Amino acid sequence: MGREHLSRQFDADLDEIRLELLEMGGTVELMIGNAVQALVERDSSLARLVIATDLQINRMEMEIDKKCLHLLALRQPAARDLRFATLALKIVTDLERIGDQCANIAKRALELNLEPPLNPYADVPRMAQAVNSLLRNALDAFVHEDPQLAAAVCVKDRFVDELDDQVQREMLTFMIEDSGNIGRAMRINSVSKYLERVADHATNIAEMVIFMVNGKDIRHPALGASIR
Amino acid sequence: MGREHLSRQFDADLDEIRLELLEMGGTVELMIGNAVQALVERDSSLARLVIATDLQINRMEMEIDKKCLHLLALRQPAARDLRFATLALKIVTDLERIGDQCANIAKRALELNLEPPLNPYADVPRMAQAVNSLLRNALDAFVHEDPQLAAAVCVKDRFVDELDDQVQREMLTFMIEDSGNIGRAMRINSVSKYLERVADHATNIAEMVIFMVNGKDIRHPALGASIR
Repeated sequence: MGREHLSRQFDADLDEIRLELLEMGGTVELMIGNAVQALVERDSSLARLVIATDLQINRMEMEIDKKCLHLLALRQPAARDLRFATLALKIVTDLERIGDQCANIAKRALELNLEPPLNPYADVPRMAQAVNSLLRNALDAFVHEDPQLAAAVCVKDRFVDELDDQVQREMLTFMIEDSGNIGRAMRINSVSKYLERVADHATNIAEMVIFMVNGKDIRHPALGASIR
Repeated sequence: MGREHLSRQFDADLDEIRLELLEMGGTVELMIGNAVQALVERDSSLARLVIATDLQINRMEMEIDKKCLHLLALRQPAARDLRFATLALKIVTDLERIGDQCANIAKRALELNLEPPLNPYADVPRMAQAVNSLLRNALDAFVHEDPQLAAAVCVKDRFVDELDDQVQREMLTFMIEDSGNIGRAMRINSVSKYLERVADHATNIAEMVIFMVNGKDIRHPALGASIR
């Protein structure tokens, strides 16, 4: 086996990990959309589907972890490829936890569907859309090794935080108006917090992508530190 | 330089990473205690100290990340040492995010200190104690490569979830009693959620420790999958 063959095999391994991560990302994006649709359209069977999909996400996580460890052990990548493999290990953890958040949203949807609807969930679908676009951009930035796109994710995260504040304030009004709303309003607050956590995970991914591409750590710019 | 020298150097590198991770863990434990003390004793300067310590945590994260990458690149560890280095990369992310949660608690404390006290925060200090013991056990399990201790962490996480439910219910009662309590009760709810997230991070660390020691993935036992 020549050096060229080994190098081709190595590239194939990297491509496989990249593809599986993207597939996992796509599945997670679908879960976000479905979880919020289950909530807004009061569709309990869709909520149960989201919870079931979380098991699939867990399986994907273990599969990709395994492939990264094999790559690190057998192919001993250097520099950028090493950063790619270690980044994949970290990203996969974020994606798995996003899956957990989607399952949490679906569980709150199941509970809310047992009670009369509180009101149209105004900003929640908008928030889900914003979160989904953040996650897609973060993963695109990863695949195309695009630090500009990743940097835009970090900025847009603030928009999701604002939407979360808006939902919290709206629910507060409902609770003040009528204490009978409190239980449901708090569940919707939880959903908003789950979506905010998903956005945090997407932002974490974006920050790590910038690190991978530049070999420089921008996660904590105030420190002015860099890793080379 | 003989093989023995290299091996000693390698062990020294591993020990250094282990020690720095423990130091970071100890700092984070202190932050949890201080954040809740700042809340309960209405001590705004302690809250500001917690927020400042978060910067130190960020610096530690980058330092350990850098050392793990160097170890993976230059010493090309295999098997258990490889799992240790990749686990350290993941644990450090969890510790850094625990630091973020402590800073969030401190920020809520600063806000709450501007208003009259709502009531003694009954279960919050108990919860912080439970969370701290979870984290300490998870890190001890990591250092001593003790899967039994790690498994106990995963079980005790449920206790924190129950305390969180209790806080949420208690705050709900306050909100129903008097709508003037809603703003403050929601902030305390947030604190409880932050602590619950810290416990989740500790549980994640424990699950990964079991993986490292056994070379087996127990994160999602329902799947019956393993990584060897």
